[in-house]
Amino acid sequence: MIRRGAGDAPAMVTIREMGPRPTRERLDPVAVEEPLEIRVAAGGERRTLAVTMRTPGGDRELAVGFLYGEGLVRDRELIAGIEAGTEVDPETELERDFVEIELAARRLPNLRSLERHFFTGSACGVCGRAALDELLVAGCEPVAPGPNLAPALISGLPAVLRTAQRGFDATGGLHAAGLFDETGRRLAVWEDVGRHNALDKLVGRAVLDGELGPERLLDRHVLLVSGRASFEILQKSVAAGIPMVCAVSAPTSLAVEVAERFRVTLVGFVRDGRFNVYSHPERVEGA
Amino acid sequence: MIRRGAGDAPAMVTIREMGPRPTRERLDPVAVEEPLEIRVAAGGERRTLAVTMRTPGGDRELAVGFLYGEGLVRDRELIAGIEAGTEVDPETELERDFVEIELAARRLPNLRSLERHFFTGSACGVCGRAALDELLVAGCEPVAPGPNLAPALISGLPAVLRTAQRGFDATGGLHAAGLFDETGRRLAVWEDVGRHNALDKLVGRAVLDGELGPERLLDRHVLLVSGRASFEILQKSVAAGIPMVCAVSAPTSLAVEVAERFRVTLVGFVRDGRFNVYSHPERVEGA
Repeated sequence: MIRRGAGDAPAMVTIREMGPRPTRERLDPVAVEEPLEIRVAAGGERRTLAVTMRTPGGDRELAVGFLYGEGLVRDRELIAGIEAGTEVDPETELERDFVEIELAARRLPNLRSLERHFFTGSACGVCGRAALDELLVAGCEPVAPGPNLAPALISGLPAVLRTAQRGFDATGGLHAAGLFDETGRRLAVWEDVGRHNALDKLVGRAVLDGELGPERLLDRHVLLVSGRASFEILQKSVAAGIPMVCAVSAPTSLAVEVAERFRVTLVGFVRDGRFNVYSHPERVEGA
Repeated sequence: MIRRGAGDAPAMVTIREMGPRPTRERLDPVAVEEPLEIRVAAGGERRTLAVTMRTPGGDRELAVGFLYGEGLVRDRELIAGIEAGTEVDPETELERDFVEIELAARRLPNLRSLERHFFTGSACGVCGRAALDELLVAGCEPVAPGPNLAPALISGLPAVLRTAQRGFDATGGLHAAGLFDETGRRLAVWEDVGRHNALDKLVGRAVLDGELGPERLLDRHVLLVSGRASFEILQKSVAAGIPMVCAVSAPTSLAVEVAERFRVTLVGFVRDGRFNVYSHPERVEGA
């Protein structure tokens, strides 16, 4: 039996706990995974861009961050309105959440190139071998020199992130993305079943707050992700101009390649007072 | 500096190791993440279905498993040939790996419904709210009653999987999917940067070996995944008829929903001699 939580609360599931002690039935919180349809609209037209599995909470941020990463909304001034809600699909009669972003434009942008992109599933960081080049095409440039950080500050970030991972504490099933300034101050933390969603929410909030836009990048900031650093994490970080990406777990080979090419300092395995620097060590004191 | 490994060997990256001891530069193995284009061909036509980020090794299995999960190849007799290789994209002049599956058919199947599916990124388990119903539409049925397992056998699976996670041992960056029979014997283990790819490889190999097909399902088997159990893991397991899915980490709410509806026993947090049963406990002794 599964009971959905309200908003971003975990779902409650009746489980049987097995182990050395007698079997026990109890209610257990589980991370919520549900689809969200992301749409854009302009001049009376609308278009579905993606349906992504996500954890409810921060849906507007997720949609804006997703569009930012795809190069569709690089400025909050381009957003005329945001509508979020739940609809019933006339075919299946099932409910589905949506976010529709009304663009401040007379018509929808040419989505053909985007379509190709979505066909290959960019929402999940799935891209062509031309992935690195697409970042350049998408207007991404190597990130700014950015800050220079002490190793102790980097080592301390996971503990700071950890105190804000409420959903993970409850369910053990959520990724987190945290944004820090160069003094190690925590600016934002978002959680989601999908690591890319957590980062999209973080980026989307920054866009909505005017902290990220055509003339402002997160170029004095540090990103920390609670799991691994894959291509998509680097792809989205580069688009936001973030100069340092730290991961509690391992990076992938393509993450290292993107980091090298776009001048991102990629740090992995930040745990137990240690970490590895995979690229551009010039931002880490003593590296 | 990053140096690619041959085949499925890890990439080697020059890293700086920071910690209590003096900074040390050394070569470190990193899990390889690279795109693979999956194509189908029939009657002289060909079509790209997906470009997925994967860890090289088991590319044919991955392609076959992916097509199986999408309902395109439910029988190895439908495969007339498999070609795998590397091509140079004429536009970007970049190399890209591909697998092309030649179908034993006069023409390509109607891919329109599939397109809609891919548009929403099914390769990553991203689907509509109608996800559960699509499984029914895709011809998926509730799984068979299947085996009844002792708790000690379930508790022991992660240690058995662990001894076969060679890539994880080297890089810390790979997911694993293991298939076991009802006596706990390990039948197959596949690793990948993407958890869904690891499972696709496992399923694809079973199809190619004739262990999975129109008249055979993996219906006396147990699947163990090294991380979390999300919607897509359950989606692919149900398509293969696997009655029991175990995860070392947490399940998501939609994974539990699919498991309940398709009569899968979903077991989570299998660690330290304990585990939780989230659905259909009738296959676990004493639950």
